[in-house]
Amino acid sequence: MIIDSHAHVVMPPSMMHYLVEVIAAHANPTLGNPEPSEEALRTATEGLIKQMDEVGTEMQFLSPRPYMQMHSIKPAKVTASWTRAVNNVIARQVKMFPDRFRGVAGLPQFRETSPENCLEELDRCVNELGFIGCLLNPDPTEGDALPPPGLGDPFWYPVYERLVKYDIPVLVHSASCCHPRETYTLKFINENSIAVISLLESDVFKDFPKLKIVIPHGGGAIPYQMGRFRAWHHRRNMPGTFDDRLRQLYYDTCNYSKEALELLLKVVGPDNVLFATERPGTGSVRDPKTGKDYDDLKPVIESIDFLSAEDKRKVFEGNAKKLYARGFPG
Amino acid sequence: MIIDSHAHVVMPPSMMHYLVEVIAAHANPTLGNPEPSEEALRTATEGLIKQMDEVGTEMQFLSPRPYMQMHSIKPAKVTASWTRAVNNVIARQVKMFPDRFRGVAGLPQFRETSPENCLEELDRCVNELGFIGCLLNPDPTEGDALPPPGLGDPFWYPVYERLVKYDIPVLVHSASCCHPRETYTLKFINENSIAVISLLESDVFKDFPKLKIVIPHGGGAIPYQMGRFRAWHHRRNMPGTFDDRLRQLYYDTCNYSKEALELLLKVVGPDNVLFATERPGTGSVRDPKTGKDYDDLKPVIESIDFLSAEDKRKVFEGNAKKLYARGFPG
Repeated sequence: MIIDSHAHVVMPPSMMHYLVEVIAAHANPTLGNPEPSEEALRTATEGLIKQMDEVGTEMQFLSPRPYMQMHSIKPAKVTASWTRAVNNVIARQVKMFPDRFRGVAGLPQFRETSPENCLEELDRCVNELGFIGCLLNPDPTEGDALPPPGLGDPFWYPVYERLVKYDIPVLVHSASCCHPRETYTLKFINENSIAVISLLESDVFKDFPKLKIVIPHGGGAIPYQMGRFRAWHHRRNMPGTFDDRLRQLYYDTCNYSKEALELLLKVVGPDNVLFATERPGTGSVRDPKTGKDYDDLKPVIESIDFLSAEDKRKVFEGNAKKLYARGFPG
Repeated sequence: MIIDSHAHVVMPPSMMHYLVEVIAAHANPTLGNPEPSEEALRTATEGLIKQMDEVGTEMQFLSPRPYMQMHSIKPAKVTASWTRAVNNVIARQVKMFPDRFRGVAGLPQFRETSPENCLEELDRCVNELGFIGCLLNPDPTEGDALPPPGLGDPFWYPVYERLVKYDIPVLVHSASCCHPRETYTLKFINENSIAVISLLESDVFKDFPKLKIVIPHGGGAIPYQMGRFRAWHHRRNMPGTFDDRLRQLYYDTCNYSKEALELLLKVVGPDNVLFATERPGTGSVRDPKTGKDYDDLKPVIESIDFLSAEDKRKVFEGNAKKLYARGFPG
């Protein structure tokens, strides 16, 4: 099976109208829970399935579209209302096409607020909606203020405790960015780099040995900048190697160049890499050099000659099923 | 000639005492200009030359040690006093060993202040001290506040005008970092990534076609994340290719892994890459795998088999001499 472990929801247009209303009204008054019609939802979801079929993806793990999470827009009720509504849409899509999708929850993170405010929605998504993982944004200020402490800090422990309790992984993904020097798509990458180093230099995996964390987009800058961090590791006489620490985390292939994916797979190894394309998303545009969309990554992975057939099976399917075990019972 | 285009000053211990005094007194009162004795300076500089000789470096371009630039410590006079003192030390080292060094100026940037405050020191360094380039820190708040606009913004034009007037390049290098989630060494990388995208999405090279900008550390995350930015380029129907834009900038090899340097040289091409090691610095520690220091990069570049002898000559020497032409008259 080809599992795209990192994909984002495609919704009927009525949801965009709802979002505008929530933002414009600052979620005050509370608007009713928007429920797209069955027909509108089916049309949108079949459109998504067509895009999956075009590139041979059999299943997607669907989460909210990150840059539309509204984590910094005041008041907190905006993201609270919106996140709940999007999670509901995802749950209906999974129910509609249970062989094609699994649900990954968005969390109503809000600026500098402790992520404890997210636990109620996380519980609901796992227990009532059957979700198998969640997103986590390391900077819910969205570049509008100094961010909270790094993911290695106990600030985040309330979420980690709940993830371990449910045995579900978290996908580290920032949202949008207010600062004019950093587009949201670039912030994704920088936040991935910051997340890796903050986690690997912390006690998180001592305190939560069973925690499963996925860093998307090939790990930001880190696999490319390994020499720097290997050297730091030795300079401080730390035990083991930086490479071993790196493998405490999981990474995904949502990086649209073959040279980079080869480097990722060499550095991290095929046991810690999950297939992912984010399609439709940033990479859904034709590469004039290959005549294929940038996010058509299945043939790219298939063409990497140093991966064995078993390695490829792990990357396409095995690692995702192992990590997101809650989605594949029995 | 083997030119290390990105190296940082090594100073006699008295300079550290001076720095502590300046910080502790908040540069109030003004302390006299510290001038290490000729003997102490010679000892420190010969120690540095020994480290260069160990790895076959014939010349270094020396600039202030970035994380010690104190760009966010109040008041502005701290970095003003310190920057001037360090630039003076570098000038003396260049004069002492004119075949081994060239000077690259530090600028007394201060938090959100316009970099116009740096022009007087830049003029002094070029006109009186004979420096051939300067550093530029995209975030002089050092992670203590929201940073100034990106390097593509006219906020930075006063410096760019002066660089073009003198026909000298700038090396983009952040300083330290106050935010606990981001060490200074990681911030170097993230600031490099932000600088590349901010510059390439701006009018800077329309407004300053002769401006020469070097992004160290292999360009941060960008060469590894090329697919993402290539796709964005096409999604917005921009003219040309992102790869062409990338070559408006120069990059250096201060990245301590061979896989990464191969990727850099493939993506950017040997005309836009300068040899650099930052030795002694982060990479000055033994790699247990190779038995050599991480920053012993000359044999690494020499071993890259897709580079011709002429390519290697450009990387080791030719590109540096072309860019920093002021350092090699006649």
